[in-house]
Amino acid sequence: MVDILHRIGVEGSTPEDVYDALTTLDGLTGWWTEQTTGDPGLDGVTEFRFERGGFDMKVVEAVPGRRVLWEVVGGEAEWIGTKIHWDLRQEGPWTVVLFKHEGWREPSEFMHHCSTKWASFLFSLKDFVQNGKGAPAPNDFRIDDWD
Amino acid sequence: MVDILHRIGVEGSTPEDVYDALTTLDGLTGWWTEQTTGDPGLDGVTEFRFERGGFDMKVVEAVPGRRVLWEVVGGEAEWIGTKIHWDLRQEGPWTVVLFKHEGWREPSEFMHHCSTKWASFLFSLKDFVQNGKGAPAPNDFRIDDWD
Repeated sequence: MVDILHRIGVEGSTPEDVYDALTTLDGLTGWWTEQTTGDPGLDGVTEFRFERGGFDMKVVEAVPGRRVLWEVVGGEAEWIGTKIHWDLRQEGPWTVVLFKHEGWREPSEFMHHCSTKWASFLFSLKDFVQNGKGAPAPNDFRIDDWD
Repeated sequence: MVDILHRIGVEGSTPEDVYDALTTLDGLTGWWTEQTTGDPGLDGVTEFRFERGGFDMKVVEAVPGRRVLWEVVGGEAEWIGTKIHWDLRQEGPWTVVLFKHEGWREPSEFMHHCSTKWASFLFSLKDFVQNGKGAPAPNDFRIDDWD
């Protein structure tokens, strides 16, 4: 099992601000993909759609201002059953976000791609919370020939 | 042992263009850090310096247009002995870059940070080769409270 790990800081924000961006449709459509539907609260399932397919996430944990955990219940075969952890804490004027996409079966080329694409969406999340404007799909940053 | 994995595509370039950006001082100062000295050719050691410290890399493999492998021989304790793989190939108008920073002893918070920071420098490398202008330190993208 191999994991994708990331860390960003969102300046001038609180963990509650980032938590809202992860647990509401207004937040998720502002930084990940404009085509987001469903229920992003605890025990809900959210459908994220992109030009080439998408993912369904079940919200397994949601602790306000602290932590969100998604389990992938639909989408790309390599993602099914993997988990996405969001851990939030305050460090002075920054909200520190520790991100882990856990449970990949092998370090495939698609996993390399997803690691970098997650970084670009984390920068979008940072911009969305800091400045009110992210770069959600379909206007996301193109990192390679795949998307 | 855990690894950092990434994949970027550099549009309108050849693997030789990216190889040059990885194996010359003009290239490395254009996307990673302006304070780069030493010998980035095979068997050479290159010193990369940042506001807070830096890294010395030995070039262990260098196959023109195909592959570069660095071993970290100086710098942060967590980096010493780790290896950084760059694998290049052409896919139509794209050069695909597979990146692996291999051999971390544990998935520390610093490793989370470095994974995301590498993504930001890979975007800088992409811009440098595509458009002639990267964002090397000290004008790099600030990802969090650490740098």
